[in-house]
Amino acid sequence: MQQVVDFVLEIDKLKHVTRKTKPIGLDRHENSAEHSWQIALFAHALAPHADSPVDISRVVTMLLVHDLGEIDTGDTIVFADIDWEAAKRDELTAIRRILGHLPSETAAPLIALWEEFEANESDDARFANALDRAMPALLNLNNQGQSWRENGISYDRVVRRIEAPIRDGCPGLWHYMSARLAEANEKGWFGA
Amino acid sequence: MQQVVDFVLEIDKLKHVTRKTKPIGLDRHENSAEHSWQIALFAHALAPHADSPVDISRVVTMLLVHDLGEIDTGDTIVFADIDWEAAKRDELTAIRRILGHLPSETAAPLIALWEEFEANESDDARFANALDRAMPALLNLNNQGQSWRENGISYDRVVRRIEAPIRDGCPGLWHYMSARLAEANEKGWFGA
Repeated sequence: MQQVVDFVLEIDKLKHVTRKTKPIGLDRHENSAEHSWQIALFAHALAPHADSPVDISRVVTMLLVHDLGEIDTGDTIVFADIDWEAAKRDELTAIRRILGHLPSETAAPLIALWEEFEANESDDARFANALDRAMPALLNLNNQGQSWRENGISYDRVVRRIEAPIRDGCPGLWHYMSARLAEANEKGWFGA
Repeated sequence: MQQVVDFVLEIDKLKHVTRKTKPIGLDRHENSAEHSWQIALFAHALAPHADSPVDISRVVTMLLVHDLGEIDTGDTIVFADIDWEAAKRDELTAIRRILGHLPSETAAPLIALWEEFEANESDDARFANALDRAMPALLNLNNQGQSWRENGISYDRVVRRIEAPIRDGCPGLWHYMSARLAEANEKGWFGA
């Protein structure tokens, strides 16, 4: 039982990890814990719009663990120009350390789901990645482009980075969002 | 698709709802969104210790929605001396309003799981309620009793309120916690 408690206190640290987006109506950045909760429920709401049938339970578990590694690495905005392969290797090391608090029978399936999410090849992973990419953009679309403007991210850069994962994971969601993003561009809600 | 987006923006407001406990090492109160995420992963970690087999997918979904009604009602500390039946009726009204953004095929099973959690009669619901009751106490046990001291909650009052739900939902967890709570009492970490 002490292992379980050590784990649940360890993951408390994800509440410390702030992202670039702000919750609507709040003057603070959101953290990766509340973000993970939001997209887990987003998965339930969006599941009927998935093109291929998805296993909602596997998708939700992926989303609950997908940012855990940030406890060690911190959050990096998806538009950052960094060595993403190296960053993901560091996150995997972190995931193994954090889930290493638990017995391997419990940890191994969660690590495997993290890896499946990152590989982004299965239908479940593609759906989960679409949710993760869409959520900050949906917040920005309702925050006058807050994190795009603050971080100088242009419309073209946003579309180039999020179109493929959202379209591949949930075409209907991209159809909706592409129109909203174009409207936001006309309103000047992007960085230069 | 607009319904789905309206829903996911509506639930963003749970990030505004603060609780009485603080994340470990942070000088701010936690919010109900990050709390919900934490106990969903707690469920995965604790599942092997459940007395009766639990359906982890149902338990996690219950935990993801269990506090949604607080968007309308706010969070109330579990030790508050209020009309809990009336408060829960208000929360159900809120849950129906918030999930009412979604088509009824999606909303109805989520509302049913919220009701099952509140009824606290099924094995899954008892396990989920144990997690929800245990988590703030586990934070307090690692925060020198922060919310107990700040809100004047005595050791007896804590045990009276959380023993039954935790013991009924996960006897092994209560066995562990009762010893930790007694130690914390000796250290003077409770209110008068």
